[in-house]
Amino acid sequence: MTEPLWIAGAWRASDEPTGTFRAIDPATGEAIGPAFPRSSPADVERAVAAAAAAALALAELDPARIDGFLDDYAARIDGDAEALVAIAARETGLPREPRLLRVELPRTTGQLRQAAEAVRTASFAQPTIDTRAGLRACFAALRKPVLVLGPNNFPFAFNAIAGGDFAAALAAGNPVIAKAHPSHPATSQALAVHAAAALAAAELPSGAIQLIYDLPHPLGLRLAGDDRLGAIAFTGSRRGGLALKAAADAAAVPIYLEMSSINPVFILPGALDQRGAAIAEELTSSCTLGAGQFCTNPGLVVLADSPAARDFIAEATRRFAAAPPALLLSPGVRDELEASVAALTAAGARVLAGGARGPGAGCWFQPTLLSATAAQLLANPALQREAFGPVTLVVVAPDAAALPVIAGALEGNLTASLYAAADGHDEAPYRAVARVLRGRVGRLLDDKMPTGVAVSPAMVHGGPFPATAHPGFTSVGMPAAIRRFAALHAYDHVGDAHLPPVLRDRNPGAVWRSIDGQWTTEDVAAERAGGQEHRS
Amino acid sequence: MTEPLWIAGAWRASDEPTGTFRAIDPATGEAIGPAFPRSSPADVERAVAAAAAAALALAELDPARIDGFLDDYAARIDGDAEALVAIAARETGLPREPRLLRVELPRTTGQLRQAAEAVRTASFAQPTIDTRAGLRACFAALRKPVLVLGPNNFPFAFNAIAGGDFAAALAAGNPVIAKAHPSHPATSQALAVHAAAALAAAELPSGAIQLIYDLPHPLGLRLAGDDRLGAIAFTGSRRGGLALKAAADAAAVPIYLEMSSINPVFILPGALDQRGAAIAEELTSSCTLGAGQFCTNPGLVVLADSPAARDFIAEATRRFAAAPPALLLSPGVRDELEASVAALTAAGARVLAGGARGPGAGCWFQPTLLSATAAQLLANPALQREAFGPVTLVVVAPDAAALPVIAGALEGNLTASLYAAADGHDEAPYRAVARVLRGRVGRLLDDKMPTGVAVSPAMVHGGPFPATAHPGFTSVGMPAAIRRFAALHAYDHVGDAHLPPVLRDRNPGAVWRSIDGQWTTEDVAAERAGGQEHRS
Repeated sequence: MTEPLWIAGAWRASDEPTGTFRAIDPATGEAIGPAFPRSSPADVERAVAAAAAAALALAELDPARIDGFLDDYAARIDGDAEALVAIAARETGLPREPRLLRVELPRTTGQLRQAAEAVRTASFAQPTIDTRAGLRACFAALRKPVLVLGPNNFPFAFNAIAGGDFAAALAAGNPVIAKAHPSHPATSQALAVHAAAALAAAELPSGAIQLIYDLPHPLGLRLAGDDRLGAIAFTGSRRGGLALKAAADAAAVPIYLEMSSINPVFILPGALDQRGAAIAEELTSSCTLGAGQFCTNPGLVVLADSPAARDFIAEATRRFAAAPPALLLSPGVRDELEASVAALTAAGARVLAGGARGPGAGCWFQPTLLSATAAQLLANPALQREAFGPVTLVVVAPDAAALPVIAGALEGNLTASLYAAADGHDEAPYRAVARVLRGRVGRLLDDKMPTGVAVSPAMVHGGPFPATAHPGFTSVGMPAAIRRFAALHAYDHVGDAHLPPVLRDRNPGAVWRSIDGQWTTEDVAAERAGGQEHRS
Repeated sequence: MTEPLWIAGAWRASDEPTGTFRAIDPATGEAIGPAFPRSSPADVERAVAAAAAAALALAELDPARIDGFLDDYAARIDGDAEALVAIAARETGLPREPRLLRVELPRTTGQLRQAAEAVRTASFAQPTIDTRAGLRACFAALRKPVLVLGPNNFPFAFNAIAGGDFAAALAAGNPVIAKAHPSHPATSQALAVHAAAALAAAELPSGAIQLIYDLPHPLGLRLAGDDRLGAIAFTGSRRGGLALKAAADAAAVPIYLEMSSINPVFILPGALDQRGAAIAEELTSSCTLGAGQFCTNPGLVVLADSPAARDFIAEATRRFAAAPPALLLSPGVRDELEASVAALTAAGARVLAGGARGPGAGCWFQPTLLSATAAQLLANPALQREAFGPVTLVVVAPDAAALPVIAGALEGNLTASLYAAADGHDEAPYRAVARVLRGRVGRLLDDKMPTGVAVSPAMVHGGPFPATAHPGFTSVGMPAAIRRFAALHAYDHVGDAHLPPVLRDRNPGAVWRSIDGQWTTEDVAAERAGGQEHRS
């Protein structure tokens, strides 16, 4: 017997599972916990059918029921935080404190509450009213299921059954099919227990949420190409993302991918002169935080050669060498990281510190600092390979004039950071580099490492391909993240009683709406009301 | 010698064209006007390289230069309206008046001016400021060229060098590569002359606009798969759109498609009883307007059988039969329409009126009314084929209870209309049908035919696949249409002087911005100002 799936409002045994698997304790490499099913086509069909059947009812539900669900789910997670953290810590090797208990779990429940708030205030709907043309429009539910595929590195905050994509898809009014990451199945299951209880309390349609633990690769691709889906959200590797994208594209299912990123950090000459040692410390902390297993890990540092640059590298080398080995999420992550470091050195990078796995049989790896020249980076795109873990490549340019050239050779990334002198001495290179980086990243940072992704309406956790597949979206930050899972709906000459509440003349909830080009929380003015009277 | 292309700020001869073509007068079927080049890989490379080279400079330009260009271009088109209309009328067979001179040309210049206004007010940028997190975000230029492929049916309003996609792509700050439709090359060229003059007057970068008249199909697909492009906009056939989508998807270039749509019109029992004859007249007018060559042509009418329904069909049949033959845009359109009508009748539809081409050698076709039963439509998806021209299929359901079932069997469309009794008698079937249609279309209309697409901020000219490839966008209506060609950019802890003007503390242009969740045209309050002081 394997653990049950959550499908169509009940815990159900997998139907003819294609295999079983157990979580692995990364500290020891040993299998732990119960056996979970690797699902079959029959499971997938049940999940898609249940979600599709719930879509219309969910879209038409009083939104208060959805924000009630999201708030209640957050409260249940908070109330069970110690137990959830214990399970997640064992499955992922991530520290209970501060990471899981003080940072990631509160962030997760904060996201659920921000999604609830976005439903309550209808901020994601962006209601737009043109009284002269008799037209009204807003974002609304897709009325189709959203498939969420969660990553390994955030057992709570990006979990397919509790993370940002889950919250956003449901906030938009869509059923979710959650495909958890197989490296933390018991964590996902424990979250789903709370989701199920909140679902029942809110009396949402039973097919509003599905949980599947794992799928054989071809079955995952078949699911991604199912045109009953309204959208797909994936956070994970480039290889996995591109395979899913091809399947989804063929079926014209919109897919949002958050793939690889090396998050370049440019440290300008004046900053190196003034505070190189402090920045080396910041870099080491940022790169080793969470064993470097962040989408926003600073994987590339670029600087112009100088005595201060050499001091910076020496200091960073000392700090990386002194940092303790990092416990990675899984044997797979360790093996992939080893392969990535080997690929970087094969492409010409030199190991300054670390570079090897160990000690022991667990998933440990040494914090690793590599170096290469600008000429090498420009000549070999393989040096832009993401090494997912506590690894940074320092690239040394001959002079500051070469920095914009390097910026111009970079692939799309989630972030780029610029460190500049506090006294304005770096203004010219700052402008030369920033203008090139700007179009290549979603988020630009001044004097700040990229780790630490605030859940804010002004956050952009996105960027140009291959960081994601569309530069116009973000996967973090409400309400923008919700709009990925919404359709744009217009009403032309439609009577007030037939409009969704956010578009009616009266605005009792004081929702922000754009009326004839002005944002307001007021009703439609009486002399302009009654869209049904205006023929265009 | 063939006519020159507009590339990199100059009129240039095609480099080794792959062929030549001339426009055809649809009224006679005869070739008219000069020979235009069918471009070569060399032309395409020059166009892409020129546009790519201009992208950064254009994105960094003072936006006033872009809105100046758009306004000036509009004024030049208005000033030359008579001559432009004469050329377009000859190439397309569309009436000079009212269509081209009084409707489409003013709409086109109105679109350019609305795009200019959206640049001036930065409404498309949607600036979002979180003072607590020290984060600011806005939509901004892709900093890559946008390829616009124009359709045959709007020589001005959707022209690749003057239409809504052109205006939107440029308003976002991106260079445009315009691939005109080969059925109206002289119109496109005449517009480009004005664009070039406005470009020079505004001193935009020379690569801001390129014009190519035609491409061999494989070369068009190769261009769509060029990852130097930031985005693609296409309006045209489903076949063409899907081929381009496959090429763009493989290169991860976002592509916006506006493809086929049959725009279902549901006429509910009470409406038929009360005003069936008037609706039959509305239907005939809407279906024959512009020879039915609109994306929003009412191609499908659905009603429940009743004496009033039979009267409606008889009246519509009389009106279609009495309507004069329509002049289509080109021999290709005529042949395709003939094939579509043949396919519909092969799928079981019965011809009630019209159905044939003629008279004479020109591109004439009879307004055509077809009928089928609900059972036929449900059994055969081929009956949902778009017949691009003055053709409507009336589907008769056994009773009102069957109407939502039919709605549920429809593909994604741009629009759906519901006609209901004025006294509320149709309320129950209205709600049953509308809830199913809502997720299947971009725009829902009450008591109104779908032709007539107001250029409004609340317009949605979009919808689920296969009407488009993404339900979250619109190709008509500023500022939403502009956001298709924009990237989402965040600034994290970035100093005021390094921010784009719309995100700075001071807001001298009174741009609408969302600051800490409130929309306002004010500055950032002094006590919250200085994003650079807030570390998250």
